[in-house]
Amino acid sequence: MAAPLFTRPRRLLLLFLGLFQGALLLFFALFITYDEPSGQAEDASSTNQVYSIFPFFQDIQVMLVVGLGLLLTFLPRYGFSALIHNFLLLNFSMQWALVLQGLLHHFHHSQVYLDLHKLLISEFAAVTVLISVGAILGRTSPCQLLAMATCEVPIYLASEWVIVSCLGVLDVGGTITIHVFSCYFGLGVSKTLFGAARQPLHPKETPTPRSDLMSLVGMLILWVFWPSFVAVLCQPGDAQHHAILNTLLAMSASTVTTAVASSLLERDGKLSPGHLQNGSLAGGVAIGVVADMAMPPVAALALGSLSAIVCVLGFRFLTPLLGRKLALQDQCGIHNLHGLPGILGATASIIVILMASKDTSRSHFSQLSPTGDNATEAVGEQWGGHGVSRQALCQAAGLAVAISASLLSGLLTGAILRLPCLAQLPEQLCFEDSLYFKIQDQTESLGPGSTAEEVTLALKEQF
Amino acid sequence: MAAPLFTRPRRLLLLFLGLFQGALLLFFALFITYDEPSGQAEDASSTNQVYSIFPFFQDIQVMLVVGLGLLLTFLPRYGFSALIHNFLLLNFSMQWALVLQGLLHHFHHSQVYLDLHKLLISEFAAVTVLISVGAILGRTSPCQLLAMATCEVPIYLASEWVIVSCLGVLDVGGTITIHVFSCYFGLGVSKTLFGAARQPLHPKETPTPRSDLMSLVGMLILWVFWPSFVAVLCQPGDAQHHAILNTLLAMSASTVTTAVASSLLERDGKLSPGHLQNGSLAGGVAIGVVADMAMPPVAALALGSLSAIVCVLGFRFLTPLLGRKLALQDQCGIHNLHGLPGILGATASIIVILMASKDTSRSHFSQLSPTGDNATEAVGEQWGGHGVSRQALCQAAGLAVAISASLLSGLLTGAILRLPCLAQLPEQLCFEDSLYFKIQDQTESLGPGSTAEEVTLALKEQF
Amino acid sequence: MAAPLFTRPRRLLLLFLGLFQGALLLFFALFITYDEPSGQAEDASSTNQVYSIFPFFQDIQVMLVVGLGLLLTFLPRYGFSALIHNFLLLNFSMQWALVLQGLLHHFHHSQVYLDLHKLLISEFAAVTVLISVGAILGRTSPCQLLAMATCEVPIYLASEWVIVSCLGVLDVGGTITIHVFSCYFGLGVSKTLFGAARQPLHPKETPTPRSDLMSLVGMLILWVFWPSFVAVLCQPGDAQHHAILNTLLAMSASTVTTAVASSLLERDGKLSPGHLQNGSLAGGVAIGVVADMAMPPVAALALGSLSAIVCVLGFRFLTPLLGRKLALQDQCGIHNLHGLPGILGATASIIVILMASKDTSRSHFSQLSPTGDNATEAVGEQWGGHGVSRQALCQAAGLAVAISASLLSGLLTGAILRLPCLAQLPEQLCFEDSLYFKIQDQTESLGPGSTAEEVTLALKEQF
Repeated sequence: MAAPLFTRPRRLLLLFLGLFQGALLLFFALFITYDEPSGQAEDASSTNQVYSIFPFFQDIQVMLVVGLGLLLTFLPRYGFSALIHNFLLLNFSMQWALVLQGLLHHFHHSQVYLDLHKLLISEFAAVTVLISVGAILGRTSPCQLLAMATCEVPIYLASEWVIVSCLGVLDVGGTITIHVFSCYFGLGVSKTLFGAARQPLHPKETPTPRSDLMSLVGMLILWVFWPSFVAVLCQPGDAQHHAILNTLLAMSASTVTTAVASSLLERDGKLSPGHLQNGSLAGGVAIGVVADMAMPPVAALALGSLSAIVCVLGFRFLTPLLGRKLALQDQCGIHNLHGLPGILGATASIIVILMASKDTSRSHFSQLSPTGDNATEAVGEQWGGHGVSRQALCQAAGLAVAISASLLSGLLTGAILRLPCLAQLPEQLCFEDSLYFKIQDQTESLGPGSTAEEVTLALKEQF
Repeated sequence: MAAPLFTRPRRLLLLFLGLFQGALLLFFALFITYDEPSGQAEDASSTNQVYSIFPFFQDIQVMLVVGLGLLLTFLPRYGFSALIHNFLLLNFSMQWALVLQGLLHHFHHSQVYLDLHKLLISEFAAVTVLISVGAILGRTSPCQLLAMATCEVPIYLASEWVIVSCLGVLDVGGTITIHVFSCYFGLGVSKTLFGAARQPLHPKETPTPRSDLMSLVGMLILWVFWPSFVAVLCQPGDAQHHAILNTLLAMSASTVTTAVASSLLERDGKLSPGHLQNGSLAGGVAIGVVADMAMPPVAALALGSLSAIVCVLGFRFLTPLLGRKLALQDQCGIHNLHGLPGILGATASIIVILMASKDTSRSHFSQLSPTGDNATEAVGEQWGGHGVSRQALCQAAGLAVAISASLLSGLLTGAILRLPCLAQLPEQLCFEDSLYFKIQDQTESLGPGSTAEEVTLALKEQF
Repeated sequence: MAAPLFTRPRRLLLLFLGLFQGALLLFFALFITYDEPSGQAEDASSTNQVYSIFPFFQDIQVMLVVGLGLLLTFLPRYGFSALIHNFLLLNFSMQWALVLQGLLHHFHHSQVYLDLHKLLISEFAAVTVLISVGAILGRTSPCQLLAMATCEVPIYLASEWVIVSCLGVLDVGGTITIHVFSCYFGLGVSKTLFGAARQPLHPKETPTPRSDLMSLVGMLILWVFWPSFVAVLCQPGDAQHHAILNTLLAMSASTVTTAVASSLLERDGKLSPGHLQNGSLAGGVAIGVVADMAMPPVAALALGSLSAIVCVLGFRFLTPLLGRKLALQDQCGIHNLHGLPGILGATASIIVILMASKDTSRSHFSQLSPTGDNATEAVGEQWGGHGVSRQALCQAAGLAVAISASLLSGLLTGAILRLPCLAQLPEQLCFEDSLYFKIQDQTESLGPGSTAEEVTLALKEQF
């Protein structure tokens, strides 16, 4: 029944993916090579990358592939699709980001050298896609998801270049460049894609205890490995150590605060699984931008608590409000997990920078620019005078750029996703695994006249 | 229906948690700071902590948050609560232990320096709470769990100080200080809390295949990362290498032995999931105290096998006996997993120390005190004469202190938990997620008169 | 009913396992010890092993215990058995491989020194058993699995010695020595064990959405940690760095290619869970043998894509064909995941070696022999002349040895497994957890006359 409806978009999808893999091979064959082993020094750098980046890289892979995948399985009949689409999008976006990075380098140099660090940067680009998808989870076809990834990755790379390299924004954990950007991009896409009509609650949208439990396990995996995500690009030494500690403190505070806030907001005092799945991670989103800055541990705790409160309040009040007033769909509540805590974190970074300027000790300033980048260090040098307020302005400008660029490009991308060839799903087919996967659904074979025995037998087989 | 019954305790809980978070912020603001970066040497130590402790720390976080959480989900209608209460208690107890450690240091120095090592010590304090909860899982309210954590953490820190710092007990993997302590604390709580009346088996206590499978996955995660738990505080080098190998050997032996023992004890030779979930880990509990001592690999294998046998026998004979004679509730069988193998391990440490004294080679003795602590090394120096037997006595004394202190304080804590304001659950409401979480339970909406079609429809939605 | 049928084999199993554990203890007591700490240099080597091997070792443990275990849970009523048998076989095979390695060393030296590296080699031997089991999953008794492990481990060690030490085959990721060997061993066992009769599809063989989802999570865990498996035995530095990058690229390419290929092969364009569970890993199997060789990144991508295509085509066409023509059972499709991509990888290694000979730069040749083994390096020295073609011949010979030795010994082992004392399962009892584990299956207690209410009640309890 649904097959003829989707045959053409599927062919388009396959054609596109097939061509992309071919182009990828060609591009790699022509331009990309490994670092030439020109001596002992190079070898030492390789060893360093393996020992200093690889463990963090593995942790981040677990977060994205297993943790985020499971977190998205809260829709009871869409777990398969959530897990697999997340996995495929991660791989496609990484490859696409590698190509784009390679093209960019190619204009400067003839050959592009691949290493673990470049793969990590591509992985970060892929993360933005995975987060943005949360806004439209379950209501889009794979074609649309792929088109979205194709648009989002280059825009992210450009926006990241403007924010970090041009504006000199300090954002070691990607709070502004990744979380805020991907949130408003996703909301923009959702807005144009689903238009002005308010969608009624779909019966398949309600999580079951089982799907909520799986999602919870995903959250726990993300929670455990989050410090690696924040600290991977820090300067080794004190900066990295503090980033890890700050992230641990912020996430611990937001976990306990989420429980308190969630319980306070419900009349019967019960905890909402959705709040727990998101609020516990809000501290990790917010801390990213200040994790390696000179600030006391209490600031990390306070930021974690605040972001959890903001996240839970967002779920309780803001999401329904946006749904009512703007007809804005936000399936996973990414605005509450990535948008609000991200803005909070950016604000905190401005405060931390301004506070640091009042401190007479110079040692703090040097810590504020731990990226080892010369341009940023030069900025740090100037902080004795007006440099600090300039850096604070930069952070604010970076936040503004991230929000406006992502919202605008998201709205445009949403318009592209409405193209008829991309196969927008009719409402009644949403949130359904069996549309994309050959899975058996034995209860469906039971007609309305089946007896209890038949039900029992079918269930015996199934479970 | 249940809501009014629990409104007051919930308010108390929220009030307490909210106040605690506030006090935590205040305390951190006043007293706690990061290590002052005073030079290159400090930076090197930070790098060392990141590279030498952080990977182990992450493994331990996975164990506690994901592994232990899943292990506790064997109660089919209490998986959510088990996972979330475990997670919240871990965070609360860690913060509470940080405060207590900070207070202690504050009396000596004006400022407290936070680093990854201090967080790790707090995490160990939290582990004792999570283990103790196993004795009363599913029968207590969140208020009671929180009150228990509040009592247990300071008592653990005091007992650990007496055992390790005063008595000089060697216990690198926390067999005595963590496992034995938390086991008898939990049993003590269970005893006073549930009184002399023998509880009948609750229908919701029986695991389903699905919940047993989740629990099994949790066990496997704990099993894989256990060597990190044992070896994290070892001296780097040979001691740490041997601790890892000993733990791997002990756990491998206890896995195979558990299968044999469990099959032998059942009339039809089938394996019991409960035995496998616990027996496979028993070797890891027992090996902790001797992991870095000078002993041949065969000792690790033998200890692992023995502890698995003791654990399985405990489940088969001792737990029912204690239930009958003492009306002692032990929901997860922590006495079999943590108590008996812990005592076995402590005994083994005495034997290893006495055996080492007969060995003429001095190199073994130096290995017996690998903590780098001056006091302990001084003890090690004396082992040429009566020092060895003194160390063996210390181990025995440490075990006695752990058991008696934990049992006594557990009994007292159980009395505190009976306070009416802490909302002891009536029997019929035990083991039920929906009491604490806003989760949908669609089968419950079906009345007794529903037809097969309605059941099928409801189930179609739910699964 | 089934109990008397299995009482005798179970006793035999217990007797065997019990005796084995006893013999293991005796053997360890007599022959195995830790490295003697003879000085500072030794200690440094210990530290190196902990830091350079241990993180990889932990990743591999996660892969085998959790990832592979979950991957095998796709049979809906056999998840428990799959997970536990995998876990027990891993432990038994590791211990057995340790004993065999020890015996071998013992003939040369009086004492055997145990370290993490030797444990890792034993773990690799255990992997071959776990892969081979995939061919006969669900149709064999634990006795048979144990007998199979007992036979396979020594044959693997001998074959690995011939291939790597005698022939000097370069195979850092175990593509030939582990994957190809274990695949054809498993197929050989399956062939003799199940004879010429073609088995009809058992109703319990069909995965449910739930069991497929669990299996998918297992695949994702394997996917994430695969680079550690390939790179653990590489030379630190460039070789290890490249091995990691090559593996990441190959697996990323095979993931996207699998989705395209699977969708193309089905008439309605839906993705098959089975294809995804296997095809995404095919790149990792194939890349192992060339991961540290001098080749451009594009080669890794191409190899990954090709192996995914081969794997999916194998599932679609070859497995049914082998079933029809040769009555060959391959429950998990190990021929498609390990056999075909393994052969493809071996072929690729020949091409890479021949291509490298045309390259004039000497630096590439030195990279071709990164194992640090003197014999292999000597081979590398000769590659200026006919050495390269000799090395290419060696790779081909190694592949031929792996296939023929494994197939032959597998067929023989299958004959041993038909011994009546090993309790071949009657067809109707296959794929059933409750045969081996004391698990409750409450739907089964409902007779055919139960009403909808009873079903509902039973299900309420169970889920």
